[in-house]
Amino acid sequence: MRAYNFAAGPSTLPLEVLEEAQKELLDFQGTGMSVTEISHRNKKFMAVVEEAEASLRSLMNIPDDYAVLFVQGGASQQFAAVPLNLMHHGKADYIVTGNFAKKAYEEGVIYGGDGAKCVASSADKNYTYIPDVDKIAFNADADYVHLTSNNTIFGTRFVRFPETGNVPLVADMSSDILSREVDVSRFGVIYAGAQKNVAPAGVTIVIAKRSLIRDPLKICPTMLKWKTQDKEGAHSLYNTPPCFSIYIANLVLRRLIRLGGIKEMEKVNEYKAGLLYDFIDNSSLFRNYVEKKYRSIMNVPFVTGSEELDAKFVKEATAAGLVSLKGHRLVGGMRASIYNAMPVEGVKALIEFMKKFETENK
Amino acid sequence: MRAYNFAAGPSTLPLEVLEEAQKELLDFQGTGMSVTEISHRNKKFMAVVEEAEASLRSLMNIPDDYAVLFVQGGASQQFAAVPLNLMHHGKADYIVTGNFAKKAYEEGVIYGGDGAKCVASSADKNYTYIPDVDKIAFNADADYVHLTSNNTIFGTRFVRFPETGNVPLVADMSSDILSREVDVSRFGVIYAGAQKNVAPAGVTIVIAKRSLIRDPLKICPTMLKWKTQDKEGAHSLYNTPPCFSIYIANLVLRRLIRLGGIKEMEKVNEYKAGLLYDFIDNSSLFRNYVEKKYRSIMNVPFVTGSEELDAKFVKEATAAGLVSLKGHRLVGGMRASIYNAMPVEGVKALIEFMKKFETENK
Repeated sequence: MRAYNFAAGPSTLPLEVLEEAQKELLDFQGTGMSVTEISHRNKKFMAVVEEAEASLRSLMNIPDDYAVLFVQGGASQQFAAVPLNLMHHGKADYIVTGNFAKKAYEEGVIYGGDGAKCVASSADKNYTYIPDVDKIAFNADADYVHLTSNNTIFGTRFVRFPETGNVPLVADMSSDILSREVDVSRFGVIYAGAQKNVAPAGVTIVIAKRSLIRDPLKICPTMLKWKTQDKEGAHSLYNTPPCFSIYIANLVLRRLIRLGGIKEMEKVNEYKAGLLYDFIDNSSLFRNYVEKKYRSIMNVPFVTGSEELDAKFVKEATAAGLVSLKGHRLVGGMRASIYNAMPVEGVKALIEFMKKFETENK
Repeated sequence: MRAYNFAAGPSTLPLEVLEEAQKELLDFQGTGMSVTEISHRNKKFMAVVEEAEASLRSLMNIPDDYAVLFVQGGASQQFAAVPLNLMHHGKADYIVTGNFAKKAYEEGVIYGGDGAKCVASSADKNYTYIPDVDKIAFNADADYVHLTSNNTIFGTRFVRFPETGNVPLVADMSSDILSREVDVSRFGVIYAGAQKNVAPAGVTIVIAKRSLIRDPLKICPTMLKWKTQDKEGAHSLYNTPPCFSIYIANLVLRRLIRLGGIKEMEKVNEYKAGLLYDFIDNSSLFRNYVEKKYRSIMNVPFVTGSEELDAKFVKEATAAGLVSLKGHRLVGGMRASIYNAMPVEGVKALIEFMKKFETENK
């Protein structure tokens, strides 16, 4: 029986995508080879990369003067790539709204020292809110402003993005890319590890305004230079890319287009999250501590107030086929990650289970 | 029909491994989830990483004081990681025996400038041989000596490795790791993109003596620091690893143990390569230009002497189910990559086809 999988990442993939991949795992498009066995320069594989890029451009309405890259190393590697590509004057502003935002900032400090500044943080309340973006004093001479659009561990998200004038805005969108409409033209760079909303782990998406990426720092490794992957004819194929992850990403993106695009996904995601938050807010047992305005529609943390009861919940939920609900160690309790691929039925099944658990544990 | 796939990388995988992966792609070990959907911190996935590491240690007889890591970015990324982890005095010696060896050297120059030296090269004869390692004047104060054990494009390999005294020897073994017995203790660091002999593209193996990797350069990105992935309890799980590629690597390694280990693989590889070289050497049509002593047992380039005939060969071979035989653009002609996963039958089928082609094109 297929589980409802609420893992934060790697996370659930659309069943139809997995079924298609399974069907052709030994014979990709009549080649007599697996997609994992063909050269990345094989025309059939290059067509996969090109379609994936075109789909992403279409879904996110990415302007033509932006590069769209599929790279390796996860968002954690981009934490270094950002300063190594953009920090020409050793200055950058970071908004620290969670664990990964903090790691991105710390990596900025490696290259900028004191020039990398934490200009706003929600650490004072264990990251349960997002600082008011209108009240942040940004540095006009910063090389960029960095933020994390959705905080996987703490279940918060930016609902508005700051105005940073001429300073490029850089966003780690690992946990909410393709979940809601975003005006890409407002960002200098967007990056996202794909293992939450797009594909199996191993591929990272980078969307970068080309005018910003022409002149990486001299110490930047060739593979971390975004322009390396954006060269004429390179198309993310400078070296062997993570082919299987890109192949699955392509199937996922194709499905999103079929389902009506991001606008439609956002509606469904708002609906799914709404069902769950409504239930929690009216529950006598479960609580969510995030400031309502900033609640993530991708990651929903909740607690019972008792560690024992939390553990019991996770255990019984697992037995009922609702898996990977244990919260992150920094927060405790439970967390339901309800990415694009989580069907409405999964959220409803979770709520039914929570109701039952609440009744049984009064 | 399954093709005999002679691609240089990504390349053919053992059919039995693909079949096992296909069978459980929707339900990994009864979890009700795909292996691509479970958390990398799930015990069942951590067991996969641990088994893969243990298998590699056992197969290659890796000493305990060496770290074994599964990272991302391919060998190309390691070209930077090598100096960023080891180049403490800005000095390194490179042996340049092909395209990738040259790229590794050029990346060394980014960090070492003139201190990164090409101490030997076979560029004078288009990389058709390996310089005599006993005649190379190494620098006693170099931070490391770098070489490429097997040259995928040119079809050469080191048959002996240089004595470098106290200077650590670093080897890119992307295209011959696990194909022949190697004394790991003679190397400071071995790295290999896995997409040739081990797994689908997306995972890179690093084997590094722990005493050498404690103090990376300050400018080294956290994700490129080998010690990041070797921390207590990290076990290549500092961030989300390329799970699917590691999962397949584990199945491939398990199979190698079942088949009798590297010693046995080396015998088969020598046998396969011997059949092909013998045929070529006795052919009136096909030739291999590599100095015999240094011929690779993994990548066998050959030509007819006529570009037209080469093209005809590749086309007709493809139609006969012998695919990806086109040579690299730097060499032309044909290339048969015959990694561990290429069955003896595949090599015999190629030879039969070559015989027929020779007769038909006299």
